[in-house]
Amino acid sequence: MSNTSSEIRYQVRDLIEYATALFAAAGCDGDKPAAIAAGLVEADLLGHTTHGLQLAPTYLGELESGGMIPRGEPEVVADRGATVTWDGRRLPGVWLTAKAVDLAVERAPTYGVATIVIRRSHHIGCLAAFLQRATDRGLMITIASSDPAVASVAPFGGRKAVFTPDPFAVGIPTDADPILIDISASITTNGMAGRLRREGKTFPGAWALDAAGAPTDDPNALFSDPPGSLLPLGGAEYGHKGFGLALMVEALTQGLSGFGRAEAPTQWGASVFVQVIDPTAFGGRDAFQHETGWLANACRDSPPVPGVDAVRVPGQRGLAHKKRALAEGVVLYPGIADALAPHATRLRVTPPRPIGA
Amino acid sequence: MSNTSSEIRYQVRDLIEYATALFAAAGCDGDKPAAIAAGLVEADLLGHTTHGLQLAPTYLGELESGGMIPRGEPEVVADRGATVTWDGRRLPGVWLTAKAVDLAVERAPTYGVATIVIRRSHHIGCLAAFLQRATDRGLMITIASSDPAVASVAPFGGRKAVFTPDPFAVGIPTDADPILIDISASITTNGMAGRLRREGKTFPGAWALDAAGAPTDDPNALFSDPPGSLLPLGGAEYGHKGFGLALMVEALTQGLSGFGRAEAPTQWGASVFVQVIDPTAFGGRDAFQHETGWLANACRDSPPVPGVDAVRVPGQRGLAHKKRALAEGVVLYPGIADALAPHATRLRVTPPRPIGA
Repeated sequence: MSNTSSEIRYQVRDLIEYATALFAAAGCDGDKPAAIAAGLVEADLLGHTTHGLQLAPTYLGELESGGMIPRGEPEVVADRGATVTWDGRRLPGVWLTAKAVDLAVERAPTYGVATIVIRRSHHIGCLAAFLQRATDRGLMITIASSDPAVASVAPFGGRKAVFTPDPFAVGIPTDADPILIDISASITTNGMAGRLRREGKTFPGAWALDAAGAPTDDPNALFSDPPGSLLPLGGAEYGHKGFGLALMVEALTQGLSGFGRAEAPTQWGASVFVQVIDPTAFGGRDAFQHETGWLANACRDSPPVPGVDAVRVPGQRGLAHKKRALAEGVVLYPGIADALAPHATRLRVTPPRPIGA
Repeated sequence: MSNTSSEIRYQVRDLIEYATALFAAAGCDGDKPAAIAAGLVEADLLGHTTHGLQLAPTYLGELESGGMIPRGEPEVVADRGATVTWDGRRLPGVWLTAKAVDLAVERAPTYGVATIVIRRSHHIGCLAAFLQRATDRGLMITIASSDPAVASVAPFGGRKAVFTPDPFAVGIPTDADPILIDISASITTNGMAGRLRREGKTFPGAWALDAAGAPTDDPNALFSDPPGSLLPLGGAEYGHKGFGLALMVEALTQGLSGFGRAEAPTQWGASVFVQVIDPTAFGGRDAFQHETGWLANACRDSPPVPGVDAVRVPGQRGLAHKKRALAEGVVLYPGIADALAPHATRLRVTPPRPIGA
C-alpha cells in the first residue's frame, strides 16, 4: 500500500483507544474492551482487512441485540493442567481467545504442550492476530475455529454446504521473524465472497459451486435461493484435501469442545481450539529455531517463477505492513470508518481524527 | 476393484507372514519384522498401493546397504510424560512409528494430549496405516512426516524445491466408522510422479513446475536436469495455502525433533510427529463422537454434484477396500510380487501361493 496524499491514515493508538471506548460504552467489563480493540486493530495492522475493525460494527450490533454477552468469565468445563475446556457463554470471542492463548502460553513450559478448547465462544476475529503472543516467547502455536451455526463450504463431491471455511493459523518462531500462517480449509472465505459481491467482482478462479453443483467464479452464487457453496481447498480437482482439513478443524473445535452442529445452534459464534507447544520440551529451543530459520531462508532463496519478484514466507508481508502502520499510521479499508460512525454517535464516543486532520 | 478371474489374489495373513519372514531374514530383531510387515500390508489393505508392499524391496535394499539399521532401540532424547523425543538412529520407520503411536495411545488418557517426535527415523511408510491403533480406542490422532534429505516441492512463488510433500494424517473416531484422513502439503507425491512417469501418463492437472517455473502436467519435469518441482496444495492459483501447510509439517517434524534440513542429511529418512488426543480430557468422549458422527453423516447426506454418485467421507473407501481384502484376499499392484522375488531368493524365503494356485 503506497502512502499517497489522498489516503486517510490513523495513528494505531488512536484506533485502539477508539475501539476500546466503543466496547466499554457498549457494556463490556474488565479487560474486555481493550482486548477486543487490540485484537481487531492487530488484524488491520497485519493487513487482514476483512477481519479487523470491519467486524467492530457487527460485534457492537451483537452486543446491542444480546447475541454477544458483555460481562463475566467463561465456565471451566474441565481442567487437567495440560488440557482445559471452557464454555465461552457467548462472551466476546476475541477476548476469550486472547485469554486462552495467554493461559496456554503460561502452561506450555510446564507440560510441553498445552491445549485449550472453547465451546460457545462468540466470533473470534482474525486468527493470525493472536499468534505473536506465543511466538514472541519462543513457542509454536496453532489456533483453529469453526462456527457450528453456519454452513457455507461443501464436502468434496457434494453441493450442499456442511462446513464453515474452518480457518486455522500456525505461528512458528524462528531465529529471526516468526512465520505466521493463516489459512482455511476452503479456497476462499465468506467475508471475501461478500466483499467481492458488494464490489461487483468475481473470484480469481472457480472457487465456488452454484446450487446445482457447477463450479463458478461468481460470488453471487453463495447468495442465491437455494444457495451455492464455497469449494474446499483443492476445488473440483483435488478438493478431498480441503475436505480432510475441514473435518480435522471441526473435530478439533466442535468435537473436543463437545458443542457443534449436532446441537443445531442458530446464533453466530465459534468453537475454538488453541494449542501451544514449547520446543524446549522436545529437541530444544535453539535446535527448533535453527531448523525453522534455516527453512524460512531456504524458501526466500528459492529463485522465483516468472512474474514473481521473490518468494515471501507467510507473515512476511503482514509483519512489514504492521511495521509501516506503526510508524506511519493505518489506512482503514474503505467503508469501515463510516460503518462505525453510527455506533460512535449512539454510544457517545468521539471518533479519532486522521493524521494531519 | 472387481474380482475377475485374471487377478492374482493373496490371503492377507500369507502376505504378512511373507513380509515378516523377509525382514527377519534381513536381520531385523524382536518385533520389528512383524511390525514392518503389518504396517506395509495395512497400507495395501486400505488401497494406498504406492506405500504398501511396494516399499518392501527398497527397505530390504536399505537393510542390505546399511542405510536402515535392523537392531536395537531408539535413544530417548527427552521424556516429560506428555512429550517424548526419540533419536530413531535410522531404525525401521514403520516399526518406530507404530511404537510411538502405541506409546502416545498409552499416555494420552493420563495427560489428555500425548506428543512424540522422532528424529533420524528411516522412512515410515503409509501414515494412514497407523491411525486405527488410536481411533479403535476412541482417541484422535495426528501423524506428520517429512524427509529432510529430499526436496521436491517448491515454496509458493519459487521454482527450486525446498520441501518433501510433507504428508500428514488424521484419525477421528466417530460413533460409527472412523474418519481416516491422509493428505499432504503438495498436490501430489513423489511416488505418484514416479509411477505416472513409468506408465507414460500425465498428472490430471498442472500439478508440477518445470525447471523454468512454468506449470506442467508432465511428471518427467521432476526428473530433468536441473529438476522441476511439485506444486504445493493450491497450485499456481492459491499455493500459499499448501506452502503454509508444508511449513507447519516441517516445523512439527524437523523443528521439534531438532533434526532437519539445516543438518543437510543425505540418507533417505524421516523426521516424525505423532500426537494423540483423548476427548475424555476435554468435553467428553460421547460428546466428541456424537459431533463427529453427526458431521460424517451430514457430509454423506450432502446431495452429490453432477457426475458423482455420493459423497464419501475420508477413509470410507479404504475401510471398504480393507474389509473386502480381508474376506476375499488382496490383489497386489502390478510389479510388486516380481520386485520382491529376488529378495526372497537371496534371503531364502518362500513367496506365498496366490489364492487358488
